[in-house]
Amino acid sequence: MFSYEPIGIIHSPFNTPEGMPIQPAGAKDIRGSVEVDDKYEDGLGDIEGFSHIILVYHFHLVTGFDLKVTPFIDDQPHGLFSTRAPRRPNPIGLSVVRLVLREGNTLQIEGVDVLDGTPLLDIKPFSPEFDCPESARTGWMEKAKGKVQEKKADDRFK
Amino acid sequence: MFSYEPIGIIHSPFNTPEGMPIQPAGAKDIRGSVEVDDKYEDGLGDIEGFSHIILVYHFHLVTGFDLKVTPFIDDQPHGLFSTRAPRRPNPIGLSVVRLVLREGNTLQIEGVDVLDGTPLLDIKPFSPEFDCPESARTGWMEKAKGKVQEKKADDRFK
Repeated sequence: MFSYEPIGIIHSPFNTPEGMPIQPAGAKDIRGSVEVDDKYEDGLGDIEGFSHIILVYHFHLVTGFDLKVTPFIDDQPHGLFSTRAPRRPNPIGLSVVRLVLREGNTLQIEGVDVLDGTPLLDIKPFSPEFDCPESARTGWMEKAKGKVQEKKADDRFK
Repeated sequence: MFSYEPIGIIHSPFNTPEGMPIQPAGAKDIRGSVEVDDKYEDGLGDIEGFSHIILVYHFHLVTGFDLKVTPFIDDQPHGLFSTRAPRRPNPIGLSVVRLVLREGNTLQIEGVDVLDGTPLLDIKPFSPEFDCPESARTGWMEKAKGKVQEKKADDRFK
């Protein structure tokens, strides 16, 4: 067992999952902020050079999980680990968001697809060289391509 | 505090950090495997459709952290959260690796930049639409671009 303590909190306009965008790609204009605990502020040095950051957070409102899930962007069930559903054995979320501005220990961000009050576990700088392999195949998601902007979350993963 | 339990284990040719590649980009031909616990095997359904997966894992050999670190690919110190250094308040690692083959609960992978025996916390399907924003700026990393293949890890983050 590993125990992690939040390093801050994510603020967004979303208080419930219903109607929330799916993935940053579905939330391009949605603004939010990340408030990093004061004691970690020095760790944010030079982050303003990055246009995008990876937020690693805890899905704090979910409980339990199913190994087969029907995601928002499909009508067929898939293995949990082939989906980005929040109900997982370890409910860790990842979102690549745009970093608009840093003010001290607060980061203004854009492309926010997380609930207000979500506990932040880590921030990593996004690098295409590290994080984006060329020509990726995306299985069942292929046919949902471009549809993520139209879809919204509902309460199925509460 | 959040407690997570490993869902499996990552196998790689690396028993110590010294000489290990930095990021999957520096480990393109390195093969390894992911052994997911039997009880989660059903969660792997349809994962073989994805050419790449995101491994979320616990850096099990590190202790503590510093808020300013000098990364392997630079000679200047940077704020911890602007780096991918393993010593972090919550030592969670992310690697996008190529999925070569699934055999039951075992995934053969390529592009492995993690230590043998690393505890696995989660697997997510990689999707360029979700995970790769266009035209990202990468701050201090710009000048290290393309150098990650030449660099190897050492023991500085033990």
